[in-house]
Amino acid sequence: MTEKEWTDFLKKYLQENHYIIKSRNEDCGVIKLSKKNYLLFTTDALVEGIHFDFKYTSFSDLGTKLAVANLSDIAAMGGDPKWGLLTLGSPTPIEISWGKSFIKSLTSTLKKFNTYLIGGDTVKSPVFFVNLCLIGITNNPILRKGANPEDLIFVSKPLGGSAAFLKMIKTKSLKEIPKNLKDAHLKPKPEIFLGKKLSRFKLATSMIDISDGLLLDLWRICEENEVGAEIYEEKIPIEKFATLEDALTGGEDYALLFTVKKENIEKLKKLSLTLNRKVFFIGKIIKEKKLYLIKNKIKTEIKPEGFNHFVN
Amino acid sequence: MTEKEWTDFLKKYLQENHYIIKSRNEDCGVIKLSKKNYLLFTTDALVEGIHFDFKYTSFSDLGTKLAVANLSDIAAMGGDPKWGLLTLGSPTPIEISWGKSFIKSLTSTLKKFNTYLIGGDTVKSPVFFVNLCLIGITNNPILRKGANPEDLIFVSKPLGGSAAFLKMIKTKSLKEIPKNLKDAHLKPKPEIFLGKKLSRFKLATSMIDISDGLLLDLWRICEENEVGAEIYEEKIPIEKFATLEDALTGGEDYALLFTVKKENIEKLKKLSLTLNRKVFFIGKIIKEKKLYLIKNKIKTEIKPEGFNHFVN
Repeated sequence: MTEKEWTDFLKKYLQENHYIIKSRNEDCGVIKLSKKNYLLFTTDALVEGIHFDFKYTSFSDLGTKLAVANLSDIAAMGGDPKWGLLTLGSPTPIEISWGKSFIKSLTSTLKKFNTYLIGGDTVKSPVFFVNLCLIGITNNPILRKGANPEDLIFVSKPLGGSAAFLKMIKTKSLKEIPKNLKDAHLKPKPEIFLGKKLSRFKLATSMIDISDGLLLDLWRICEENEVGAEIYEEKIPIEKFATLEDALTGGEDYALLFTVKKENIEKLKKLSLTLNRKVFFIGKIIKEKKLYLIKNKIKTEIKPEGFNHFVN
Repeated sequence: MTEKEWTDFLKKYLQENHYIIKSRNEDCGVIKLSKKNYLLFTTDALVEGIHFDFKYTSFSDLGTKLAVANLSDIAAMGGDPKWGLLTLGSPTPIEISWGKSFIKSLTSTLKKFNTYLIGGDTVKSPVFFVNLCLIGITNNPILRKGANPEDLIFVSKPLGGSAAFLKMIKTKSLKEIPKNLKDAHLKPKPEIFLGKKLSRFKLATSMIDISDGLLLDLWRICEENEVGAEIYEEKIPIEKFATLEDALTGGEDYALLFTVKKENIEKLKKLSLTLNRKVFFIGKIIKEKKLYLIKNKIKTEIKPEGFNHFVN
């Protein structure tokens, strides 16, 4: 099975009922504890040789990356991350040198968002891997479901930096790669703060974090809402030294992708001013269930493509 | 670092405060949501070649084992398991044949205790591994901390079956091994129901699940309470075809080990009658910080030994 066939298959076994609001097609499972209190529940694993390479990833970078991958899932639902559990699999006993670097960067990244590690499991494994599991809370979870035709599409930051890094590292040394690309891949920043504000002010009709590429993650929003989207090539914010292709199909950007009703655009602008940061308008939701890239008013249909965990 | 040195080191990075009641030395992290509402948060991973062998473990057995390892941690705190996330790492794309067996047994084992899978992560990995993360709830978490000298020690079922299975499988085929030992290792049963009753009636002063062997897990209770224990060899319930050594040091029994104040013994007896099941008295907590095995009134000091994840 491809990853999509597997996740489609899994849905039969994922419960949804009066208190499990969402278990399918979302960045987190959503549990309703009471009328205005929801738990968000998410997990992400990183495996050596698949998701990172110790040739250019330090243990400190790995701690950051693991925290961010999970924090970003909580951000994508407008949540407040709270508590985490770490599973660490290692072929050799843990050494203080790297164990400390890893745990320090993991816990300090979590702590920036008042999130705390409260336990976990350590196992022997032929391959090195780490898995983090996070619980977040929110009063108003923003789902992927909710976007309607005419809603405007935004991303929270320039895209493609992480993908550009991965291309460059194939032929260049770490020193030769521009700092902004290294930071994009090795020290990404989760959009917790923006996500919480969008939830609090009920500004986003749908939201996802871009972990598998803009096109693929935008298409996930579209599929969930049985709609399509058109995006304007000249509007897509591209990280310096990255290409349009990196921005469209590269993974691990950890930007937020969200939709906003037209009548709320002024409120979004105000929020952006208050937070002293940009958000980037890139297109709009359309009725037709297709993705279009528009350049100089010429509309081209494009296929959603991105990171498939069993192909790449 | 040994596993113990690592977990001791980790404690510096595990937060405990007014709402994170326990993050250290417990089967679950314990979070206080409100005066009488606690979340229990636990995770356990199983790695091919380390925790199981596909030579004698079917995908269906693996699903059961993963569920039970985690459910047992919730049981150990008297909790009610609720929601889970699965991480699955596989070297090859998932095939419907084994994928279905695994997920069916995992979700049906969880469902027996009204626990539901609500999401997860699927990754490519050079080695096959699975990780489950569970959230449980309780009004009264039973900690390891709480045992006092003179408290009586109980276990919830005969021990050593899983260890005896692992010894036999080295020289025998699956067919030649007695059913009770196969069940002990491949289809263990978590003690959720008993754990919840002990919590509800406030009968256990401390509790742990025996996952790394009776002696080691009893010693964990002792260390946490700065006490010791004496256990009576003739009282230790041993699974049929297992040895005393299997019962003392074998892992993965998933029995509950708990302590009860003397004045509550009658209440415990009544509970045991009501539930129509046995619990087994095996010894008592003592002031002296040592472990003793008593046989024919002869007292021998014994070292806590069990399953060390980086040695075995």
